[in-house]
Amino acid sequence: LGGAMAAWARSVRGLLLDVSGVLYDSGGDGGVPIAGSVEAVRRIKASGLKLRFCTNETQATREKFVKKLQGMGFDISVAEVTSPAPAACRILKERCLRPHLLVHDDLIPEFAEIDKANPNCVVIGDAAENFTYTNLNEAFRILIGMEKPLLLSLGKGRYYKETDGLKLDVGAYMKALEYACDVQAEVVGKPAKKFFESALAEMGVPPQQAIMIGDDIVNDVGGAQRCGMRALQVRTGKYRPCDENHPDVKPDAYVNNLAEAVDIILQQM
Amino acid sequence: LGGAMAAWARSVRGLLLDVSGVLYDSGGDGGVPIAGSVEAVRRIKASGLKLRFCTNETQATREKFVKKLQGMGFDISVAEVTSPAPAACRILKERCLRPHLLVHDDLIPEFAEIDKANPNCVVIGDAAENFTYTNLNEAFRILIGMEKPLLLSLGKGRYYKETDGLKLDVGAYMKALEYACDVQAEVVGKPAKKFFESALAEMGVPPQQAIMIGDDIVNDVGGAQRCGMRALQVRTGKYRPCDENHPDVKPDAYVNNLAEAVDIILQQM
Repeated sequence: LGGAMAAWARSVRGLLLDVSGVLYDSGGDGGVPIAGSVEAVRRIKASGLKLRFCTNETQATREKFVKKLQGMGFDISVAEVTSPAPAACRILKERCLRPHLLVHDDLIPEFAEIDKANPNCVVIGDAAENFTYTNLNEAFRILIGMEKPLLLSLGKGRYYKETDGLKLDVGAYMKALEYACDVQAEVVGKPAKKFFESALAEMGVPPQQAIMIGDDIVNDVGGAQRCGMRALQVRTGKYRPCDENHPDVKPDAYVNNLAEAVDIILQQM
Repeated sequence: LGGAMAAWARSVRGLLLDVSGVLYDSGGDGGVPIAGSVEAVRRIKASGLKLRFCTNETQATREKFVKKLQGMGFDISVAEVTSPAPAACRILKERCLRPHLLVHDDLIPEFAEIDKANPNCVVIGDAAENFTYTNLNEAFRILIGMEKPLLLSLGKGRYYKETDGLKLDVGAYMKALEYACDVQAEVVGKPAKKFFESALAEMGVPPQQAIMIGDDIVNDVGGAQRCGMRALQVRTGKYRPCDENHPDVKPDAYVNNLAEAVDIILQQM
């Protein structure tokens, strides 16, 4: 990493952490923490750096998600989490949109206060087992029946890693509906600039003084950099060696894992 | 239609007919013939015009597909049908490819003679109910595990109409896998130029003397025109009024249905 990193790392005041693939590897059994990450979160908090968890997780409400992470030993609270569903709810309310939801059952409570009768848009999240042939056809028919189909996508990840292997993420299904309806989805969540900006605002740190740490070259690293932040890619989670030859995105540095990132950042302070 | 059509319709020697949405509307119950189409096929054959059925149907073997159409009263035989699965088998053999199949159960017999052990490509067709979350993840993992993922897609239709409504077609799922693996599928079937060319060769008619009749503005009309054929769009099947404002493709003429197309073409002869 060397001297070049040192210069900008010294001015850091806040960290944005991706969660899945950085703090833990998800899976059917709830998942397992990545070695050193529980302690790394504790050390960030002890250092006085501001911290915010910036996730595209849409398989559960923030409450349930945070409880799972607490169960693994992480020092994390709901108020510290920026995630797509609450951001989508703000958009739906502002623009008087009534969604048809193609999301995970456990995410539905986040939309409890939203009018869903007679839908005029479709919201797609990481619906996992709810990505059935029937449910995809239903969402498609609702979209194609609109004069101007409106699709909101909670993230646009290609895939993620669970303990039992790689899984297609919401972005793949978003592309299926985009193609079928000849529309472009509006992405809520990483890598949308607005989403990173609201995480930074919640933390009270300007982009030049914040570092994003994530395992996704496009959605974490590329998205954060387009907001003026520095971004590190961890070699955990969905990281693959070929990411290091990505044609468009180059992280400000690579680290083996979150623990190593925190070591290096705290050494510079 | 008028005089402009008359000029080129007079030199016609062969017709290529799309099947679903032109001859019949498909559905869970097998489907129903479109009014006038059974008689229209008979009239084409009686006229002396060459005829070939050019379909992207991949929910059944040609044998089963033809039997269904015969049951509806159509004069059609297996030897008159050009469809993607046999074309894919030729490619697989030529290039020593061993496919993982994500296709409809009823299509699998078409691949009986193909070695499928230790797959080095994925073949996707209109798998319908087989488009489960589990099956899509499996196909994705096989692709992403290849040094250079190779995806063959039996068509790239967006959607089609069954008696109980519109359904997502193979193209939507192809796009999902393309996006997840960052690859471009090789399309076998309409609108691939090679596919139309083999249908024309089987009929023994050059493109300038052939007319394609279909309900799909991109895959039937656009594909055939790129091969140098004239193409009519019927206002049955998946036809939607907004197709008439398509930014890239304009049929040589619109007809209400196959029966009307045949009326007009036979009048010119």
